[in-house]
Parts: sequence; structure tokens; C-alpha cells
Amino acid sequence: MSVVDVSLLEQIRSLLEKQAPPAALLELTGELQPYDLSILLNSLDDDEQLLFLAALPPETAAETLGHFEPVEQYRFLDHLESEITAAILNLMSSDAVVELFTALHPLQTEQLIALLREPFREQIYDQMSYPENSAGSLATVDYIAARRWWTAEQTLGHLRKVGQAAEFYSYIYVLDHLGELVGVLSLRQLILADPQTRLEEFMLQKLITVPAELDQEQAAQLVAQYDLTALPVISRAGKMVGVLTVDDIIDVIEEEATEDIHLLGGSGPVETPYFKTDLITFFRKRIVWLLVLFVAEAFTGNILRHYEGLLTQVVALSFFIPLLVDTAGNAGTQTSTLVIRAMSVGEIRGGDFLRVVWREMRLGLVLALPMAGITFLRAMMLDSSVNLGLTVAATILVIITVSSTLGAIMPIVGKKLGLDPAVFSSPLITTVADAVGLLIYFQFARLLMGL
Amino acid sequence: MSVVDVSLLEQIRSLLEKQAPPAALLELTGELQPYDLSILLNSLDDDEQLLFLAALPPETAAETLGHFEPVEQYRFLDHLESEITAAILNLMSSDAVVELFTALHPLQTEQLIALLREPFREQIYDQMSYPENSAGSLATVDYIAARRWWTAEQTLGHLRKVGQAAEFYSYIYVLDHLGELVGVLSLRQLILADPQTRLEEFMLQKLITVPAELDQEQAAQLVAQYDLTALPVISRAGKMVGVLTVDDIIDVIEEEATEDIHLLGGSGPVETPYFKTDLITFFRKRIVWLLVLFVAEAFTGNILRHYEGLLTQVVALSFFIPLLVDTAGNAGTQTSTLVIRAMSVGEIRGGDFLRVVWREMRLGLVLALPMAGITFLRAMMLDSSVNLGLTVAATILVIITVSSTLGAIMPIVGKKLGLDPAVFSSPLITTVADAVGLLIYFQFARLLMGL
Repeated sequence: MSVVDVSLLEQIRSLLEKQAPPAALLELTGELQPYDLSILLNSLDDDEQLLFLAALPPETAAETLGHFEPVEQYRFLDHLESEITAAILNLMSSDAVVELFTALHPLQTEQLIALLREPFREQIYDQMSYPENSAGSLATVDYIAARRWWTAEQTLGHLRKVGQAAEFYSYIYVLDHLGELVGVLSLRQLILADPQTRLEEFMLQKLITVPAELDQEQAAQLVAQYDLTALPVISRAGKMVGVLTVDDIIDVIEEEATEDIHLLGGSGPVETPYFKTDLITFFRKRIVWLLVLFVAEAFTGNILRHYEGLLTQVVALSFFIPLLVDTAGNAGTQTSTLVIRAMSVGEIRGGDFLRVVWREMRLGLVLALPMAGITFLRAMMLDSSVNLGLTVAATILVIITVSSTLGAIMPIVGKKLGLDPAVFSSPLITTVADAVGLLIYFQFARLLMGL
Repeated sequence: MSVVDVSLLEQIRSLLEKQAPPAALLELTGELQPYDLSILLNSLDDDEQLLFLAALPPETAAETLGHFEPVEQYRFLDHLESEITAAILNLMSSDAVVELFTALHPLQTEQLIALLREPFREQIYDQMSYPENSAGSLATVDYIAARRWWTAEQTLGHLRKVGQAAEFYSYIYVLDHLGELVGVLSLRQLILADPQTRLEEFMLQKLITVPAELDQEQAAQLVAQYDLTALPVISRAGKMVGVLTVDDIIDVIEEEATEDIHLLGGSGPVETPYFKTDLITFFRKRIVWLLVLFVAEAFTGNILRHYEGLLTQVVALSFFIPLLVDTAGNAGTQTSTLVIRAMSVGEIRGGDFLRVVWREMRLGLVLALPMAGITFLRAMMLDSSVNLGLTVAATILVIITVSSTLGAIMPIVGKKLGLDPAVFSSPLITTVADAVGLLIYFQFARLLMGL
């Protein structure tokens, strides 16, 4: 699907080497999308990259940079001539600039802020005052604003004047004289309207907006639920801060899903793309969790040592340990994963606690019944002792029910404690299920096998 | 955030009971979004729901139905008077109709198709010929088309005539006389253009399009990468099929992430929202996987029975079984999860096989070293035999390296076999790691403990 091929790359290289004028380069790349240009840029050497970026129109360079990680963006901006850096930076969307500045060292940020022009600099300062990953920090300020008393014709005239610069441009936001958002209209409504009508007569007044402090994940949920393509962000003082656009929302949805998936897979969330993440980062994210899981799991050794006598008497008891601990973990993980995902997309909310637990407990029991039957048959095959078979089957029955219930309780409790449900429950569920499962196993062994 | 409150619900109920005219209802709910209306509808009884839907303007009812699952949509459509059903159905977006018809029983579909008007019916038949979850079946046909020789002014005039009906309306698609897509322009470009310019003079000609047969997940990746808000879909014959809009893309991204998460959590993917899914569905999705995992895990019992002699001689060997199998599973799951997610979002592609495996093998070894050290200390605490400590530590060293490597190999092999990487690897990784881990454990025990 990519339009970047080797021959294009070679042509660009030779043009850069010959120091051909920018026009020659643009002829080759003029119809490429910024994303394609970013792929192309990735295939060039460091020096070529800078020459190529300098040759692009600044607005194209600004959009292309948007497809890089902050650390790479900084490398480019730091090495280009400062007029070019300034031109590009002032044409980047405000949310991209905020993301870049937030990721950099304060000294690097300071150096770049000095290149911003007013009122953009002021807007960036404002946006940087909102928490990271909040609606306010993610919004773009490049939207079209109009006044409620303007006519449709006046507004179209205004668009023709300022429209080229605005990043986001499917809706017009109508403000009153205090800068408060009082309505919205789509470009489509504007075109269809009688030219002499005032905006306040046909704008939509009941708006879905979000406070600037709202977490980006909740904002993304709203956009997904209401099928919006843009979401205005409002400051505590009631002023319009900017617009969350759907391309940013898609990024948020992908990031949040990735974070959940990494946490559920038992490692810290890795935010950078796979091949752009160094092994040290992966090591740090993974070793912490391996250790946490190890420490939690270490108790199972104590439990087993406690029942050393039983294990010595009936060595066959140990045959079923991996099966029991894994099945307990599997059942618990199934439940917690389903519950965590449903919480992430807003299907399960705080008030649903008892309803979810009651559901999962019953479901666990129903799942446990056939599993216990199969376990009994399997135990008979391995050991052909009816008592051992009953012990293992009874343990499976209880442990699947218990770990399914725990899998429902733990994410919700984690959330109530203000923790990410995935962080709180995914490492714990397996180890808690294991420990509980082993304790139950040996109690049943005592009871049913007369040990 | 929801605008639906109890008092509103009560007012609506009493209006419905009194058989108040639709106008009275609309006064209460006129400014609500279709999503809000769907929440409201959910809180009403079956009879009230039908009265309420019948009172809504058909286009609002059509959009509101879009927020329900197909089975519920059918219940409404089947119970409303057939003129109302026909009016609503003909105003639904084509992708929503296709989704509904695909989900229903053929007889139900036939009954509803009879209510469609031409050319909508023909379009629906066309779209239903594409595979489920393909770009073609997901596209909407309600876009604005123009001809290359029209002027900007003519096109605006055309918009004013047909614009009200089109679902998607940020871009104008320019077709030639054969119905082939030759260019695109945004509403913004149209407004900014000189009224007398022909579209072909300023339309963008290099377009990102997708074939109708393309899987929706790949189409979603393109939209996310290029920050698009719409993606034209082209038939094999080169004709324009429709437009993939960003609200559908968001749904695809969320669905695909949910599917991956469910599979990684060890259950079949559940497509309906948590509380709308009955326990029988959850049971079916979960029991299959529990059984698969159980059967795979059952081999560990055979391995342990094979080494019954060793376990009898040194019962302390069994203390470390849960720790070993869980740590092996954790390391393998970490890798496979990171790799599967990176494949899902397009960061790892087919050609990266060796690079990924080589990375993960080294990372596994580096992770294994400190873990082995800690394991040795833990083993000394539990048993205070140096040889057992060395056995357990050596096993951890090998098994973390091996299972990290397996975690990289299995998803990629699954993909090469044409299977979903998550389906292929997530149930297998833990059980393969367990079996390999136990075999290594007993070999080391023989070697290092002289058994």
C-alpha cells in the first residue's frame, strides 16, 4: 500500500547529493502524504534527512514531523537552521507541539519555545498547564471560531480569509463576546443556510463538550459512543480551549488498548513502537513484573513445604500441581480480562460491582462442573485411584468457581482504590488463584484420601 | 455526562401513556443525540419503546437504531408498523443495513429487503456481496459525488440540492463518466475555490483508496497511520463502492483490540457488550478454551509421572513446580503479548521474523540472569541444599530464555500459517513453556543432584 519504493528513494538521494533545487525534489514527492514522507525520511541518512526536510514546504515538514516520536522530532529541529526550525514549529498543530515539549528536557523545551510566535506561544503555555493525557493538552487550537451575530455569508467570507491555516475545519464554533462556546454548526449547515441568516438562528446549541482536565481515555469513549468527529474542550472558567479531533482520538484509543494489552500480558506498558524501543526499556518494563510475580508466587513453595508429609506419602499428588495451578490461573485470567476490557470501554461502571460478581460466580460454577468431570477421568487415567480422582476433581470445581469470582472482584476493587484495574489484578490473579488452589487441594486430599 | 435523567424518563413515560402527539415528545427530546436516545430507549418497556420510536422523525429513529445490536434492531423493526419500518430502514446508513442483514436469519433479511426502495436496495445487494468485515461491507454509499467538469459553483449548487441526505459530507468525490474515482476535494477547498474553476483543476488526484475486499483491520491501520477521516473503497472493476468513515473505523479499532484482548486472556472473542451477552455465550466462549488448555496441560501430568522416582527421592523438587511453570508462562506471555500487539498495529510485519526472534532471545537471556540469581536464593531459603538451588536456578535461566524465544516465534508462525496470531499462540505458549520447563528441570536435577 505504501507509495515509497526503492527507485524513488534512489532518485531523491541523487538529487540531494547534487544539491538540486527544492523544486526538483517537490516534483518527485509533491503528491505524497506526510505519512509517506515520514517513511521516506526514515530510509535516509542523518544528513540527507536534514537536507530533505529543509527542502519541503514548512507546513508539509510540520505535518511530516507529526509522524515521529518526540525524541526524533527534537533531533531534526535541533539540527536544522533556526529559521527553518522556527517556521516548521510554528506550523505544527498545537497538540503536537505540547506533546513534544512535554517529552523533552526543560532546557530543550525552553530553547524551542523561544522560537514560537505570539499568540501561538501563549496558547502553548496555556495548553501545557493541563495535565498530561488530559483533553486540554490533546486539543488543537487551530479551529474556526465565529460570532453568534454573524450571518452565514459573513462567516463564509471569514472562512475564505482564515481557513487555509486552520487544522480542523469540519465545524465552526460559535462564541459569545466572552469567548464562551454557545453553539456549533457544520460546514455543511453553513453551505445549506440562507446567506442572510444569523448563525444563532440555526446553530446547534446543545453541545457535547468536555472539561479540559478530563482524562483522554474518557474523552475518547465519548467520541466513540456518540460517533463524533470532533469534541470541543472547555476550561474551568468556561472558555473554549480547543477541539479534540478524531485523528488524535484514534491514537488515544490505540494507545489505551496497547497499554491494557501490555499490562494484561504481564509487563509494564511500552509506549513507543516495537522497533523504536531499545532493549533496556523492554528489560526494565518486564523485569519488574517478573519479579513481582516471582515474589507473589514464592508463597506456593511454602505451602508445598508445609504439606511435604502428604507429598511424600502420595507422590501422585504432585502430578496434578501444574494442571491445577494453570487451570485456576486460566479461569481467573479469562474473567479478569473480560471484566477489565468491559471497564475500559465503559460497559461496566462503578455501580455494577455486585451484578458483575454475581454473574461471574455463577458462570464460574457452571464452567467448573464439566471441567471437574474431565479432571476426574484424567486423574483416573494417570493414577487409577478413585480417591485421588475425587480430590483433584473437587479441587477443580472449587478453584474455578473461586478464581472466576476473584477475577471479577479484583479489577473492580483495584478501580475503587484508584488504581488501573489491569495493573492491580493481572499479576495478582494467577498467584492468588494458585495459592488458594493448592491450599484447597491439600485440604481435600486430607479429607477424601484419609491422609 | 449523560443527559438522560430519571425525571426526563418519567415525563416521557407519562406522555406515552397519555398518547400525547409526537410534537410534545420531540419538544422534550429534540436536542438529544441519537446515542442519548438509545440509552433512553433502553430504559423503557417494550411497548413504550415502539411508541417512542414511532414518534421520532424517521431519520432520527434510523440513527438511534444504529446504536443497538442487530438482534434488537430487528425486534424494533419487526414490531413497528410496516410503513414506519420501511421509512426508518431506507434512512439507515448502508453499512448499518448491511451489518443488520448479515446478522439476521435469511428469512428475516428477505422480509426487510422487500421494504427497501431502489436504488438503495441494489446498493445493499452490491455491498452484501463483499466478505464480512471487509472494507466493502463497511463502506457507506451516502457520500457526495461530483463530476470532474463541474465548476465549484455548480458543485455547491448540487450540494444544496442533495446534501441533506448524505451521511458523510466532509469530502466530495469526483468521478469520471464511467463512475471511476478520479479525484477528491474537501468542502473547505470547495468553499475557498474561485466559483468558476472546474473541479479537475484543483481536486487532489493522488488518492489513498482501498480495494473492497480488504480486511477492515488493515483499512483501519491505514486510516490511523495517515490520519485520514475518510477512505474511499474501490471495487475490482475500478468503480467507487463507497466511503469508510472514521466513526466506523473507530468501531473497528475498538473491536479488533477487544478481540485481541479476549484471545490473549484465553477465551474466544465476545463481540457483544458485556451486559448484553448472555451467560450461555460466555460459557461457550470460555469452556472451549479451558478445555483446549486443559488437554495441552494434561501432558505435564505424564512428564511428572515419568519422573515419579526422582520426586519420591527428593520431595523438595515438587516445591518449585508452581514457581517454575508460572515464571516460564509469564516470560513467554510477556513476549508473545508484546509481539502480537505490535503485529496488530502494523509495527511488526512478515519480513521481520528473524529480527524479532533474535531480539527476544537476547532479551530473554538478559532477563533470565537476575531471575536465576534470585531463584537460587529463594531455593536456599526453602530447602538449604546448594545442589537443589543450582538445579532450580539453571532451569529458570534456560526456561526464561526458551519461553521468551517461543513467545516471539509462535505468533509469527501462526500468522504465516494464516491464523490469527493471538488464537494460535496465547493458549499454547504457557503449556509449551510448562512442558519444556519440567523436562529441563528433571534433566538438571539428574545432572546436578546426581539422581
